[in-house]
Amino acid sequence: MTVLPIDDPTKRRVLRVSCQREFSYTILHPARPVLDPEELALSEAVAGRPVLLVADKNVWRLFGKQICEYAGRHLNCLATVTVHGTERRKDWTQIRKVCSEALRVGLPRDGVIVAFGGGVTLDLAGMAASLYRRGVAYVRVPTTLVGIIDTAVGIKQGFNFESRKNMLGAFYPPEGVINDINFLRTLSSAELACGVAEIIKMGMVREGSLITLLEDHGATLIRNNFQAPTGLAMEVLLRAERVMIEELQPNLFEKCQARLADFGHTFSPALERASGYGLRHGEAVALDMVLSTAIAVRRGLCAESLFNRLVDLCRKMGLPLESPLLRPELLLCSVHETRLHRSGDLNLVVPVELGRADFLQEVTLDDLDHALAMIEETSYEQPLCRQASAGL
Amino acid sequence: MTVLPIDDPTKRRVLRVSCQREFSYTILHPARPVLDPEELALSEAVAGRPVLLVADKNVWRLFGKQICEYAGRHLNCLATVTVHGTERRKDWTQIRKVCSEALRVGLPRDGVIVAFGGGVTLDLAGMAASLYRRGVAYVRVPTTLVGIIDTAVGIKQGFNFESRKNMLGAFYPPEGVINDINFLRTLSSAELACGVAEIIKMGMVREGSLITLLEDHGATLIRNNFQAPTGLAMEVLLRAERVMIEELQPNLFEKCQARLADFGHTFSPALERASGYGLRHGEAVALDMVLSTAIAVRRGLCAESLFNRLVDLCRKMGLPLESPLLRPELLLCSVHETRLHRSGDLNLVVPVELGRADFLQEVTLDDLDHALAMIEETSYEQPLCRQASAGL
Repeated sequence: MTVLPIDDPTKRRVLRVSCQREFSYTILHPARPVLDPEELALSEAVAGRPVLLVADKNVWRLFGKQICEYAGRHLNCLATVTVHGTERRKDWTQIRKVCSEALRVGLPRDGVIVAFGGGVTLDLAGMAASLYRRGVAYVRVPTTLVGIIDTAVGIKQGFNFESRKNMLGAFYPPEGVINDINFLRTLSSAELACGVAEIIKMGMVREGSLITLLEDHGATLIRNNFQAPTGLAMEVLLRAERVMIEELQPNLFEKCQARLADFGHTFSPALERASGYGLRHGEAVALDMVLSTAIAVRRGLCAESLFNRLVDLCRKMGLPLESPLLRPELLLCSVHETRLHRSGDLNLVVPVELGRADFLQEVTLDDLDHALAMIEETSYEQPLCRQASAGL
Repeated sequence: MTVLPIDDPTKRRVLRVSCQREFSYTILHPARPVLDPEELALSEAVAGRPVLLVADKNVWRLFGKQICEYAGRHLNCLATVTVHGTERRKDWTQIRKVCSEALRVGLPRDGVIVAFGGGVTLDLAGMAASLYRRGVAYVRVPTTLVGIIDTAVGIKQGFNFESRKNMLGAFYPPEGVINDINFLRTLSSAELACGVAEIIKMGMVREGSLITLLEDHGATLIRNNFQAPTGLAMEVLLRAERVMIEELQPNLFEKCQARLADFGHTFSPALERASGYGLRHGEAVALDMVLSTAIAVRRGLCAESLFNRLVDLCRKMGLPLESPLLRPELLLCSVHETRLHRSGDLNLVVPVELGRADFLQEVTLDDLDHALAMIEETSYEQPLCRQASAGL
């Protein structure tokens, strides 16, 4: 701390506050299902502290009994709050509900919020944990593929505000994450495909082997709800999580806003919003990845063969390639919004070869027209598995 | 990052995410008034970035024209939002208003929220800054004595939730603080006294010289609105800020919840709440300090002479010593609430000698009865300057 002489009336006086903060958390794949009475991963994570459980309503419907049994045996659980884990309800009202329940049951500052659910539920519970008493411990138990390989890995919490996706939020590290693939048994193919979209993302821009793995085994894994072949499912998940950690860890607070993990996340928020959140996040990400890659091809940055490979893989995974929302004016608008969110830069992530990407700072109407034409052409070649028409 | 072998089906797989984060900010007393067209402190702090101004409605009424003139000349100001800077309105509605305006005018992620106001306004703007786009830069210009020597120094933001004081909040460091004592010209003696209460706090538990300075010059400083004698006013303020920094800096995120800066802040939140926030924060702090010190005397931890010195000083500063709210049942209730907020510990800060304090973990009804009787006795000795009767 520096204090300049205080007896000189012409000088400014300056004091300085400095701080260094460290944190670390683990992402743990337990040996048994997390709710198995013999599995102590969750019990050890909360270590006897008072717990407020937050669960997605669907998760509660499917696993409520098991959660209660586990909590009764292993946790000091004060109460359970259920929330709507849908993008349309990812708002302040539900965060307030969690905080209100925490206050009602007297969750102390050394209490723990434990969340069971997908990306939306994890974000809502994470926001509540970050705000309640200026922050209590937070343990995440993702129940979706997106949750396991994407949401649960990083430290971003967020909620929608005035219909803008994740416009408010916080960087708030969890204390622990427990990734149990048994929850994936209950997901539909479309939901699993959304998770796969995020794996494709990291494969395209950073770890090409994920693309090869998915090309060879993705359809089987989705068909088997990532339950078999076990070794292979774990291999894909752990590799995806590891690549995500390697990518996020040096830039957890996003001081640098040129982020490879933003591949597929430039146009997609506007697409989701324009669909009234009928389009799933992973579907919007797929549309964005295909579009961004088409732009890269058009710019001569990327071989058309890689674009075709991406298109084929998305098709195989049941991800949409086209949507009536892919209109140039909407896309240009999202370019503008993205710039606001990335401090004036666009940082559009475009693949340049398998596992390597670059950032574009400009996208013209011409780029978009050509890219959209290229995507349209592709769709004539083969019938699409499914079109992203939800919510239209 | 550690990944255990993934081919052993009986083992847990564990990945780890670790991060170290540093930050630092300055508290600057400019040479000229911050709104003087020649003073560049604020202009330099925002460095050309887009600004959203947040101002307390009273501050805007008094200084709006000057703020506009300064902004017109030196800042890239997108808009101004005014808020009610009162404890009763320190709620989500006003934070939402600030975020909504930031979104409406397109404040980008590299934009800056600049707040003019007292503790409440600074907290509301700080919360908005912490949430909007998961955090934008935040510059504080406190306009009250509490703001200058207390709120603006640390990194705590907070707002009231379900009528509970600062139940939700965040630890969010500002990017800069500009402390301009010229704003103090407009404050009432009662408002100044509230700031002095926070100086007394740090004097009692950490820096005895502040008590001596206030005993000798406090009344003059309040009478002169901390404008004269200039050197002395600056001396008191800078010393208070410096002591506060020394106290807060090693524990900015409150990992340790035994905090000397909590002297006067154990019973006071319940007193404020019970008064319907008619009792000023500094007044409640004064009542709490006197009560806590009486408990210390009763326990034989502190000489009665120090209690008398505190009582005399509070009286001299126009701070209340008594209130009909000082009822044992309310106080015991706040002991319970405090324990929740301090992870089970009470950590009641009690002075043991001038500039030195200790923490109590238990307070009995008997302690409270005796302490209250001791305070009542004091009030018979001399007529009180004023009683805390606001809001009753």
